[in-house]
Amino acid sequence: MPAFNPLVEKLSPPPVPSVFAWGRAYDGSKGPLIDLSQAVPGYPAHSEMLKLLGETASSTAFTGYGPIEGEAELRSVYAEHASRVYGASLGSDNIHITSGCNQAFVCAAMTVAGPGNTVLMTEPFYFNHETTLAMMGVKTAFVACAAENGFLPDLVSLEAAITPDVRALALVSPNNPTGAIYPPSLLEAIFRLCREKGIWLILDETYRDFMPVAGHAPHNLFSLAGWEETLISLYSFSKSFCIPGHRLGAITAGSSAVEQIAKIMDNLQICAPRAAQAAVAAALPLLADWREENRQEIGRRADALRSVMRGLTDWKLDAIGAYFAFVRHPFAGVGSAQVAEQLARRAGIICIPGAYFGDGQQNYLRFAFANADVPTIGRLKERLQNFFLS
Amino acid sequence: MPAFNPLVEKLSPPPVPSVFAWGRAYDGSKGPLIDLSQAVPGYPAHSEMLKLLGETASSTAFTGYGPIEGEAELRSVYAEHASRVYGASLGSDNIHITSGCNQAFVCAAMTVAGPGNTVLMTEPFYFNHETTLAMMGVKTAFVACAAENGFLPDLVSLEAAITPDVRALALVSPNNPTGAIYPPSLLEAIFRLCREKGIWLILDETYRDFMPVAGHAPHNLFSLAGWEETLISLYSFSKSFCIPGHRLGAITAGSSAVEQIAKIMDNLQICAPRAAQAAVAAALPLLADWREENRQEIGRRADALRSVMRGLTDWKLDAIGAYFAFVRHPFAGVGSAQVAEQLARRAGIICIPGAYFGDGQQNYLRFAFANADVPTIGRLKERLQNFFLS
Repeated sequence: MPAFNPLVEKLSPPPVPSVFAWGRAYDGSKGPLIDLSQAVPGYPAHSEMLKLLGETASSTAFTGYGPIEGEAELRSVYAEHASRVYGASLGSDNIHITSGCNQAFVCAAMTVAGPGNTVLMTEPFYFNHETTLAMMGVKTAFVACAAENGFLPDLVSLEAAITPDVRALALVSPNNPTGAIYPPSLLEAIFRLCREKGIWLILDETYRDFMPVAGHAPHNLFSLAGWEETLISLYSFSKSFCIPGHRLGAITAGSSAVEQIAKIMDNLQICAPRAAQAAVAAALPLLADWREENRQEIGRRADALRSVMRGLTDWKLDAIGAYFAFVRHPFAGVGSAQVAEQLARRAGIICIPGAYFGDGQQNYLRFAFANADVPTIGRLKERLQNFFLS
Repeated sequence: MPAFNPLVEKLSPPPVPSVFAWGRAYDGSKGPLIDLSQAVPGYPAHSEMLKLLGETASSTAFTGYGPIEGEAELRSVYAEHASRVYGASLGSDNIHITSGCNQAFVCAAMTVAGPGNTVLMTEPFYFNHETTLAMMGVKTAFVACAAENGFLPDLVSLEAAITPDVRALALVSPNNPTGAIYPPSLLEAIFRLCREKGIWLILDETYRDFMPVAGHAPHNLFSLAGWEETLISLYSFSKSFCIPGHRLGAITAGSSAVEQIAKIMDNLQICAPRAAQAAVAAALPLLADWREENRQEIGRRADALRSVMRGLTDWKLDAIGAYFAFVRHPFAGVGSAQVAEQLARRAGIICIPGAYFGDGQQNYLRFAFANADVPTIGRLKERLQNFFLS
């Protein structure tokens, strides 16, 4: 048999299905399975969103190929929306629509780094970013983020890590897996460092709409002079509109970066699915109040998890923010995958082992607490308290 | 400004939008614009297809993430369908659903070739295959297909081109751009050559459903022993169901190749859009008769183009098959882009310049004749006859 591409062959199988498999082995004895694994909003899409999706999908207006960069209407509506969110002046030519935020990352990374170049990441990292770069033959380097520092990177370590082969720094804020929210001042300092060093800053803001405090811009980078020559920001419509199955994301970048991205997207899949783009363009202004209610609901879920964790002596909530918590389990010296597997099989809680986000994270589990409602989160207390490794 | 990835920066902008721009400069003096550029069926999707798309898109059943490899129902239904088409025994584990056939090619190529490896292609080639490999850092080598040989490759040239760095041969049958249909015996000989040489055969069969003769398997490769270890076949639902805007394709491969592809797809976009998968799973058996009518209609369009071309003295139909014709223009020595641009601006016919499919194709234009109905094709005669370069 001819060989497979070794860059692909040596990747581990996708992690989420393996975690689901552990959950399927749970016997139900502790009550219903609690799914804190893949980040999926634990409430349905709005009925108006579904209606719009049905209307656009059944229309011949969107059956043909569309513009590579995305539907003009969505690019325009999203540019206006992002301008308001960031207090900046963004236009349609700053927006490229993609088929979800993983694809946005593929496009951003490929725009700035080729095989043999290096992309710098923070550790713990979002596993798909690491595997995406690995399969593209792009090298990765890591800056460790310590629990004591709220899992935020420090500037001295970042600067030291920007060696001449580094083409970009890839960050996630609010962070996956830790939930850590990078303060605007830190993001500005990192931006200035990247600009000074002549490298790109890829900032994945998938969880932007779930900040604990409303009405503040996540950062002011889009207002800084020359942002187009340093920043590529990524966003996902999946979480905010509860439609990950429709695969829709967006890139905000300088117009010359958008031109490069269009060449990549044309090869990857010509254009993102069109009907969902048209539906989201209509839903974006319509469902602002609903999104705000969800933001508040996820804040209540975070509070519920904080309350649960305060009542436990051995489990530590080392970080919690928008959507995710990074939880230190009490079994130091035991691999996180072993802990997560037993937690799934015997306590009916599925979550992602810390080691999936980096070798140094064996003491951690990622809880996607936003998936579960407040009463369900309350049930974690008894299950965690009574859980011992067999 | 930090540099872009040179592999991406040196790609030309996507060709189809530039061709559309020439069409927008047409003044309408010769009658309505005739679009023979991007391959899009010139008839709408079936009302039942649209109804199914609307139903699935408006359902909460498909708003969440789905299986990476594709919806179980679509994989099963398509495996059965492909088994009938090829007279072979294919199962769900041989199928991976993708977001269109360009993405299927990205996955197939990346599964077998990494940066620095070589993929062998026939020339003229489908431009997105060439640019996809280029942006991935995969080298390309070409086997020229001569007009005298119906634009089919000959085995001696193929064998000579399979140097030790070649990891795969990528073919398109029915061919894009020439329309040439590779006979089953040729495909079997090529398959055996690839197997003997220990390289993969990637076979893009996007236009499979538009063969001029019905009821014959496109090839028997899926019935040959060990096909799983040589063949990766690609398919598109876009053309057959008139839904390119919904982005849906499929890969048929050995189950171990499908496992590699799932790792790539997880990074690229987690899963193909789900609602369209569910809709197509239902439509595949329902709309068999409608697809057969379309196949016959496209045959009539091919006949209409043959008739037009017979009536012209200077223009030559060097190849015609399923969907495409490769037409030799009368302006030898003039670049094909210049001819195509003037044809668009002054005669209102948009088509793709031959040079976009390889340097040696300056004397050709690709006509996607399937886009235009029989009366429209009839109108080509006068426009071509009276066309001179200015």
